[in-house]
Amino acid sequence: MARPIVFLSDFGLDDEFVGICHGVIARIAPDSHVIDLTHGIPPQDMLRAALVLANSVRYAPDEAVYLGVVDPGVGTERRPIAAETASGHLTVGPDNGLFALVWDALGGPVRAVAIESEDVILRPTSATFHGRDVFSPAAAHLATGMPLDRLGPELPPDGLDRVSVPHPAFEQGSIRCRVLGVDRFGNAQLFAKLEHLRVAGLADERVLELRAGGRDEAIRRVATYEEIAQGLGLLVDSSGFLAVVMRGASAAGHLGLVAGDPVVLSSPRG
Amino acid sequence: MARPIVFLSDFGLDDEFVGICHGVIARIAPDSHVIDLTHGIPPQDMLRAALVLANSVRYAPDEAVYLGVVDPGVGTERRPIAAETASGHLTVGPDNGLFALVWDALGGPVRAVAIESEDVILRPTSATFHGRDVFSPAAAHLATGMPLDRLGPELPPDGLDRVSVPHPAFEQGSIRCRVLGVDRFGNAQLFAKLEHLRVAGLADERVLELRAGGRDEAIRRVATYEEIAQGLGLLVDSSGFLAVVMRGASAAGHLGLVAGDPVVLSSPRG
Amino acid sequence: MARPIVFLSDFGLDDEFVGICHGVIARIAPDSHVIDLTHGIPPQDMLRAALVLANSVRYAPDEAVYLGVVDPGVGTERRPIAAETASGHLTVGPDNGLFALVWDALGGPVRAVAIESEDVILRPTSATFHGRDVFSPAAAHLATGMPLDRLGPELPPDGLDRVSVPHPAFEQGSIRCRVLGVDRFGNAQLFAKLEHLRVAGLADERVLELRAGGRDEAIRRVATYEEIAQGLGLLVDSSGFLAVVMRGASAAGHLGLVAGDPVVLSSPRG
Repeated sequence: MARPIVFLSDFGLDDEFVGICHGVIARIAPDSHVIDLTHGIPPQDMLRAALVLANSVRYAPDEAVYLGVVDPGVGTERRPIAAETASGHLTVGPDNGLFALVWDALGGPVRAVAIESEDVILRPTSATFHGRDVFSPAAAHLATGMPLDRLGPELPPDGLDRVSVPHPAFEQGSIRCRVLGVDRFGNAQLFAKLEHLRVAGLADERVLELRAGGRDEAIRRVATYEEIAQGLGLLVDSSGFLAVVMRGASAAGHLGLVAGDPVVLSSPRG
Repeated sequence: MARPIVFLSDFGLDDEFVGICHGVIARIAPDSHVIDLTHGIPPQDMLRAALVLANSVRYAPDEAVYLGVVDPGVGTERRPIAAETASGHLTVGPDNGLFALVWDALGGPVRAVAIESEDVILRPTSATFHGRDVFSPAAAHLATGMPLDRLGPELPPDGLDRVSVPHPAFEQGSIRCRVLGVDRFGNAQLFAKLEHLRVAGLADERVLELRAGGRDEAIRRVATYEEIAQGLGLLVDSSGFLAVVMRGASAAGHLGLVAGDPVVLSSPRG
Repeated sequence: MARPIVFLSDFGLDDEFVGICHGVIARIAPDSHVIDLTHGIPPQDMLRAALVLANSVRYAPDEAVYLGVVDPGVGTERRPIAAETASGHLTVGPDNGLFALVWDALGGPVRAVAIESEDVILRPTSATFHGRDVFSPAAAHLATGMPLDRLGPELPPDGLDRVSVPHPAFEQGSIRCRVLGVDRFGNAQLFAKLEHLRVAGLADERVLELRAGGRDEAIRRVATYEEIAQGLGLLVDSSGFLAVVMRGASAAGHLGLVAGDPVVLSSPRG
C-alpha cells in the first residue's frame, strides 16, 4: 500500500492545476490516498502556507508524504527539494522555507536531496508549473517507496531555506501583531498566541482593548462564541492562535480587517 | 472494507478545515472513501444543509455514514450526537436538527447516542472546531465498524432537535414562499414543490405571475431550458423543488434575488 | 480494480452537484478513483472545457474514463454519448463537441453509442441534471468494465458534434487572437501558440507590441517570471499556449482583460 500524500498549494480550485497534479500522482502511485489539505492559500502567501502545514501534522496520517507548492520562484535557481525529518516524515516542495515550521515540529530535517533524477521529473519540463512536472511526481514516487536518494543529490539539511516568521512586538502592557488570515466566518486570526498575552502581562485581563483599522474597541476574552453577549471576543482558536471573533457575525467585516493588517491588544486600564 | 462517509459542511474550501477533517478520518479509517457532498453551504444555513443532505440519500452508497457539520452552537451545551435510522443509515453531527429531513426520509432515528467517549474525542478539544475533534473521529470510527453505543450514552431518539421548515403560505390562487438558494447558473430554487402548485389550484396554468424583488413578471411553466423562448421559466428542478430559471442567463441576477427572499406565484387572471 | 474516472464540469463547488455525481459513481463503482480535473470551467464555456480536457490526457492514467459535463443543451435533443478512441480511451458526455480535441489527440473516435440503456440511466430522469442521471452512471459502469455497446445503440463516430475552435488571425507581422482564460494569478492565457508567432514572422522578436483593452504596451518574450524586470512578459505556459504575465502581479488586472477579449501581438518596428 502506498503512503498517503497531504497536498497543499495556492493553486485554487477554479483552474485545473490541482486536478492535473492528481492525475500525475495517480499515474505513478494509483493506490496513494491524496488528502487535499487546502488549495486556497492566498497566492504566494508563504507564511500562511507554512503555518497551515505545521498545524496539520497532528491531524494527518503519520506515514504521510507532505507535498507543498507555494512557489513564487518557480523557474528560477531555487531548488526543488525533498527532505526527511527526524520523525521519518517526508516533505516535497521548493527550497523556499515552506516546510520550515513542519520540520521544527518534527525534530528537524535529517536528510535532504535536490529533485533532479530523470526517473522522476517529467520532460519536457515547463518553466511555470513544477507542481506538475517536478513536485507531484517526486511525492508520488516517495509514496510508492522510492528511497529519498534516488530523487537526486544530497544537500546539507542545515542549508535549507526557511520562511521568515514575524513575531509579535511587545510594549509595556501591549502586543502589536498582524492578522494572519480571515476565515470564511469572518474570524480574524492573529499572529499571536496565549503565551504572548502572558509575556505582556495581559493573560489575566477579562477585557482588553483592541486597536485595529483606526478603531478602538473593548474585546472580551472568551472560550466560545456563545459567551459573547455583544461586540468583540478574543479566543484561542483551533490552531492555537488568538482570534478576534463575533457571535454570528464577521469580526473582520466589522473592523475592516484583512490579512496583514496590524492589531494592537492592550490593557483597558492603559 | 470501511463504510464510505458522505461529508457536508459550511466550511468552504478556502481554509484548511475540510482538509484537516479528511486527515483525521484518514488516521482512523484509511480505507474509508470520503465523498464530499458539498462544503459550500452558506455559513450556518441549517435549512439548506438539511435539504441538501435529504436530497442526497438516493444518490449516496446505502452503507454510507453521514457526517454533517453546520454548527452555529459549537462550544455550547448542544450535544454532539450519532444516530441510526430504521434503514440502518448512520448520521453524525450536532444535535441541532441538521439531519431531521434525512431521518424523515429513512424511517426516523431508532437509536441515538451523545458522542462522549474518550476513545473517540480528540484531546485537547477545541471549543470552536468540533468537526475536527468530535465529529470526524466519530464518523471514522463508525465507518470502521465501531458499534454506536461505544461512542457514548444513549439518548431518546424522539428528543433530538429538528430543523424548522418554513412551508409555503397559500392564499386564494397564490403561493408565497422563499428562495432556498441560487446556484452557479443563476437558477433560483424556491422552497415550494409541484404539490404546492396543486393545492393552490395553479398546477394547470401554463403561465403564472411572479412577484419578487419589487417586480411583477409572467413566468412560463417549462420542463427544460430550451422551452423558454424569452423571459422567465418555472421548472421542477433535479431536487424536486420549483426553480425560477432563464435560458442561458441568470434568473436570480435578472430579478435581484438572493437566498431567503420572498416570492409570490399566482394566477395571471388574478 | 475499476478504471479511474477523470471528471470535469462547469458545476462549481458551491453547490452539491459534484458531490451528488460522486455519490452516484460510488454506488456503481465503489473502487473507481475519481480525479476531479476541475469543476471551475466558466458556465457553459465549451471551448475552455475542450482545451482543458485535451491538455489533461498526458497527465491522467492511461486507462481513465473521461467524464465531461458542460451541457448548455441539457434536456434537449442533443444525445448523451460514450465514445472509444483509437487509443482505447473512453469518453462520456453530451454530444456537443466537448471531447473533440481529446479525440484528435488520441487518434479519433472509433466507436460511439448513444447512452439509452435502462440498465444505466437513473429513473426518474431529471430534465436538468443529466450529469447525475445519465453521464455519471454511464462513466461508472464503463469504469467497472461494462462493454460500450451495453450502454445503447451505436452511432457513426464521424457524425459526432465538434466544438468550434477560433484560430488566431494573421496579418502582416501581427496576430489577432482571444484571451482563453485568466488564472488565479492573473496570467492571461491566449488562444495562440508559439507556432503562430512563427507563422507571423514574430518568433525571433525579443520584444513585441501588445494591443489589448485600449492599451498599447511593450511585452517581452520570457521563459520564466523571473526574467521580467518590469512590465509585461509573454511566455509559453504549461499547457503550450502563449500567456501574458507579470512578475508577482496580475497581468489581466493590469490590462483589464477577461476571457474572450481580443489581443493583438505585433512587431514593435511596426
